[in-house]
Amino acid sequence: MPKIKALQADHSEFNSFHHTTIVRRALRADDVAIDIKYCGICHSDIAQVEGIDGMFKHPIVPGHEITGIVSAIGTDVEDFKVGDRVGVGCFIDSCGKCRYCLAGQEQFCEQGTVAVFNTPDYDGKITEGGYSQSVVVKAHFVLHIPDSLNLAEAAPLLCAGITTYNPLVRYQIGKGSKVAIIGLGGLGHIAVQFANKLGAEVTVLGHSERKRAEAEKFGATGYEILRDDTDFDRFAGQFDFILNTAAVKLNLDHYLKLLTVNGIFCFVGLTMAAQQFNLFSLFSKQGTITVSNVGGLPMTQAMLNFAAAHQVRPQIEMIGIDDVPTAYQRIIDSDVHYRFVIDMDTLK
Amino acid sequence: MPKIKALQADHSEFNSFHHTTIVRRALRADDVAIDIKYCGICHSDIAQVEGIDGMFKHPIVPGHEITGIVSAIGTDVEDFKVGDRVGVGCFIDSCGKCRYCLAGQEQFCEQGTVAVFNTPDYDGKITEGGYSQSVVVKAHFVLHIPDSLNLAEAAPLLCAGITTYNPLVRYQIGKGSKVAIIGLGGLGHIAVQFANKLGAEVTVLGHSERKRAEAEKFGATGYEILRDDTDFDRFAGQFDFILNTAAVKLNLDHYLKLLTVNGIFCFVGLTMAAQQFNLFSLFSKQGTITVSNVGGLPMTQAMLNFAAAHQVRPQIEMIGIDDVPTAYQRIIDSDVHYRFVIDMDTLK
Repeated sequence: MPKIKALQADHSEFNSFHHTTIVRRALRADDVAIDIKYCGICHSDIAQVEGIDGMFKHPIVPGHEITGIVSAIGTDVEDFKVGDRVGVGCFIDSCGKCRYCLAGQEQFCEQGTVAVFNTPDYDGKITEGGYSQSVVVKAHFVLHIPDSLNLAEAAPLLCAGITTYNPLVRYQIGKGSKVAIIGLGGLGHIAVQFANKLGAEVTVLGHSERKRAEAEKFGATGYEILRDDTDFDRFAGQFDFILNTAAVKLNLDHYLKLLTVNGIFCFVGLTMAAQQFNLFSLFSKQGTITVSNVGGLPMTQAMLNFAAAHQVRPQIEMIGIDDVPTAYQRIIDSDVHYRFVIDMDTLK
Repeated sequence: MPKIKALQADHSEFNSFHHTTIVRRALRADDVAIDIKYCGICHSDIAQVEGIDGMFKHPIVPGHEITGIVSAIGTDVEDFKVGDRVGVGCFIDSCGKCRYCLAGQEQFCEQGTVAVFNTPDYDGKITEGGYSQSVVVKAHFVLHIPDSLNLAEAAPLLCAGITTYNPLVRYQIGKGSKVAIIGLGGLGHIAVQFANKLGAEVTVLGHSERKRAEAEKFGATGYEILRDDTDFDRFAGQFDFILNTAAVKLNLDHYLKLLTVNGIFCFVGLTMAAQQFNLFSLFSKQGTITVSNVGGLPMTQAMLNFAAAHQVRPQIEMIGIDDVPTAYQRIIDSDVHYRFVIDMDTLK
């Protein structure tokens, strides 16, 4: 169990990030060891480092959008071989026995999933994530990265990708669907591509003219900035499905007005702020409000395969490991196009 | 076009109800004329008479849970004959051409449905409802009351019945479903019967010990009074579907905790009060909040047939026409077991 390098935050200040060494467990029979090449930065990394509501403990080695190369496999592993291009997403273990695990919906494991970082593993050790040189993960929780996906660009698919793909598939978005995506950031720019490639007509609801051309590049046929009642009235009843990727508090009643009959408003951008709505905003159209989670392993692999087949490509800005604190602040300032990925060679 | 008797409210005070005479239109080729025998009283009658938010105009002849006997048919009518037992529910016309009308979901007509009372009909005349001796309605909007349903008990099915049946069918409630019904009133006592007869395991979430035995009589296998966090924690993750029939503001986050993975919280009891919830109450279970409307004509007929086949029986308290103001106040005071029905013979 050699020591490996990692980046760790000791407390909620971004300047507490520092290089350290950690130890990965010895390879078990059903484990895969992975040399980490890239790790995406997700808004939820920041939330945990910031420690909202004291929910998370320090120190933390974040990172749950991991891609790399298999360096070793356990004796029972059949699905992977040394040299394979692989990915690891939000969680790395679950009970494997409950109805959800058996249905490939490990994210809802009745015993609770083990998150890839900052939660107790089944052996009691707090997990340490992808801001590190390598990781050892049970093969069941390792994903194949198809050849046609760039390994760096694939990293954000492991969280941002599955987070946006899951609700689109769950609600059968496809040809004939009219979809609105609120926000064109890390989640939004991937959601637009997935919805477009699934066959939907996609409109981005943005807040700045600056992103209009980019929305079209990602496959949106409409880009609207809705400011006042008149704007919202103009698009009343237009969208079957609205995916909110913006982690800000909205006037929900305004947006619910945009739904068609049986339309769905789905949150993937989360905020702690209480949401408020009037029942009559949903009543006349029999509308629905939901919040989507990530997908299980089978859907995550299907998402990667779909992304490869349809060239869904996260747009990334590559950074070095020591740029992490700056990158965190830039994400908070909405100054990223569209997702930061850490080149883990810079940790050597 | 002879004059008929009706009960009219001139303004929002219940003591403004008085006997009057109104005129029904001459029979058109596709019309059915109905001698009204019974009319249920629904909470939404009261809301309109009270004129919440000035949404409704006076004077009003309310009533949208109508049952009676066909007294005449237009020359083109084939589905009904004089003497048939029939019902009329919330709406009596729609465009007949839009995608929703063509799909039998007339409640979502793109031109807007014509409500049975207090809305402009397509000829401009304000509609007058079931607190009256007779009504003339386009045959498409008239329902057959199966022989095995009591004509008085069938009245509440036309609104309360379809309002509760629609979401249960829409969300495929059946054998294996665990359903909670909040409130055991006019809507709730019918919802419990439908859910039970559809095969679900039903728990009533009530607020008084007084109704425990009655809940069981209607088919509930559980009756719970949830007061504090401990109570809600005890039932966390227990219900696939929660139907809120209580028109009061709830602590939504408490109830969302009770949902299983992919569980649904559905409102049918409506209130003007803004609802509030935290996104994380839905996130971990991927839960859904929705509001259900009534059903279209095909589903309403299916609901009546189901009620007849499975002996779903609204429990009614029969009143005379002059008891309406008292009945309204008693509904507001939650003093009704479980639905008032006006015997229209008392209007003679």
